[in-house]
Amino acid sequence: MRVGVICPVWFPVPPEAYGGIERVVALLADGLVAEGHEVTLFASGDSQTRARLESVFDNAPSEWIGHTFWEMQHLVNAVLRAQEFDVVNDHTGLLGLAFGGLVDTPFCHTVHGPLEGRPGRLYEEVVRLAPDTKLISISLNQRKPKLHLPWIANCPNALDLSVYPFRRKSGGDYLLFLGRMSPDKGAHRALAVALETELPLKIAAKCREPLEIRYFDEFIRPHLNDSIEYVGEVGHADKVELLMGARALLHPIDWEEPFGLVAIEAMACGTPVIATRRGAVPEIIEHGRTGIIVDQYREMEDPATLEQADALDPAVIRQEIEERFSPQRMVADYVAAYEATIEATG
Amino acid sequence: MRVGVICPVWFPVPPEAYGGIERVVALLADGLVAEGHEVTLFASGDSQTRARLESVFDNAPSEWIGHTFWEMQHLVNAVLRAQEFDVVNDHTGLLGLAFGGLVDTPFCHTVHGPLEGRPGRLYEEVVRLAPDTKLISISLNQRKPKLHLPWIANCPNALDLSVYPFRRKSGGDYLLFLGRMSPDKGAHRALAVALETELPLKIAAKCREPLEIRYFDEFIRPHLNDSIEYVGEVGHADKVELLMGARALLHPIDWEEPFGLVAIEAMACGTPVIATRRGAVPEIIEHGRTGIIVDQYREMEDPATLEQADALDPAVIRQEIEERFSPQRMVADYVAAYEATIEATG
Repeated sequence: MRVGVICPVWFPVPPEAYGGIERVVALLADGLVAEGHEVTLFASGDSQTRARLESVFDNAPSEWIGHTFWEMQHLVNAVLRAQEFDVVNDHTGLLGLAFGGLVDTPFCHTVHGPLEGRPGRLYEEVVRLAPDTKLISISLNQRKPKLHLPWIANCPNALDLSVYPFRRKSGGDYLLFLGRMSPDKGAHRALAVALETELPLKIAAKCREPLEIRYFDEFIRPHLNDSIEYVGEVGHADKVELLMGARALLHPIDWEEPFGLVAIEAMACGTPVIATRRGAVPEIIEHGRTGIIVDQYREMEDPATLEQADALDPAVIRQEIEERFSPQRMVADYVAAYEATIEATG
Repeated sequence: MRVGVICPVWFPVPPEAYGGIERVVALLADGLVAEGHEVTLFASGDSQTRARLESVFDNAPSEWIGHTFWEMQHLVNAVLRAQEFDVVNDHTGLLGLAFGGLVDTPFCHTVHGPLEGRPGRLYEEVVRLAPDTKLISISLNQRKPKLHLPWIANCPNALDLSVYPFRRKSGGDYLLFLGRMSPDKGAHRALAVALETELPLKIAAKCREPLEIRYFDEFIRPHLNDSIEYVGEVGHADKVELLMGARALLHPIDWEEPFGLVAIEAMACGTPVIATRRGAVPEIIEHGRTGIIVDQYREMEDPATLEQADALDPAVIRQEIEERFSPQRMVADYVAAYEATIEATG
């Protein structure tokens, strides 16, 4: 199949640090090539891929993130070449979705963000402009606010398992929070659990934007001490080391997170995840077998909850990720989605 | 005629200070209503218009200027209602132009920016995505880099003449530069002229963005003295006062400026303009009758040039603006453009 894959242009593929969408698209493009498909990846010129790379910019214009003029150059280049492909799969967001309405080639768009509130309403409106576009979700929960949109497939994210070592033994010295400094992600809830249980906590999180910094200064920084440590934003090697040594990853989210890569990263290492029942958590974790799900984050303070997590078998957790979140599974899901898109566009 | 007019959403219509496009669109919408047309203006909710105002945002999201997510909400709202109109006239830029391809209603797009370089190439590509869209220029010179685009009309900008008083006598104590702190606009060239001729100069310019401030600090600030004065960014009343008292407006541009509102603002007051032969200058000024055009800005230092400017008849200059740059003329041009768009879309 000749596939055109459009990635957001703001970071190189794969990204050096932050950039979950770019990491997933990198795996997808390489995986499609490995399956024998002819893949063109539209991304910034500093990307690394086994697909044919097509770029408007030599370097990702990160300083212009979110600006129409830069995004349009990238997308228009891709859309003008749509007729070279059997199917085009866009990952860029609302502008890419709108451009689907200008393309004759079968076009499917992967929704990476949440559909609550204003973005959801805008998705709905843009679909009316581009009625032939098919949508791919990354979890079934993500669809809930907008079930009536033209969903063609559900393709959960995946990990390159070769870069996540597996630890055979459970246990560890500290609890871990990994993510971004935002109230949604809940570093302050992890902190409350650590204070209550008097267990050590390490917090590794992106903290660059003004809102992230303000949240950190107000809710996290005042509580740091010898036992509760902020280690900054971490690269892959440090992240894996943190995951390997943790007793459990706390994932106390308070929003409808469409997926949650950090949970499967921990699980790939065999590290148990204790998560609140929000977003895609119940689609990723099977309570009592591959992780622990609680209804209220305060339940994480209960010693019984932590003991349940300690009792999980790391081998079972790792195996779950190998079976359900491997690149091969994701690539197969996408190939089926592309075939369905071609079929439905007729 | 039922007309949908789409304005950029970043500033209210009309704008409080800076915002040339918004000022022109305000005049156009009110003028169309005055001619009996049924006009809907898509703009931020803090706008003032005689047209029916349709808004997604109560206040102009100025802090998000240029960001796709905000621009799209505004544009999608307009595009989804396109079928309510006989014609849609977009003033927003490249994203609005692209959305023209998603609309069945006759659609024309006014190009407000220059078409050299990267923006011109992107215009060309987007027109390929939206082949039924018709383009309106604001000067014939603006078209030059892309003569083959689907131009339907040339509609030069206009002024609300009632807010520009006319001074009957020529002369004045100082030279004036009015605009934005950028090398293109050439405050530093006006400054060089003032230094060479030892004539007083007042510089009134927007200076907010980092690049503007850096240019000011490097090229303007070191030369300020009792005779060469920077008066900041000015509102309408101060601008008119500066224009009324000036011996001449220096307009030493060094770029293909698509129009040049500041020139017609000066001329509306009867103040002579001395301009370099770039951009739309020869379409606005008739050399020796309604202003002075020089090939090199250094010619502005020649006492003979200034004497030529002194000799111009303010009444002739004002009359030229009344005849060629009145709202009535602009509205008539636009109505003809809309009729041609409807005819051509068939």
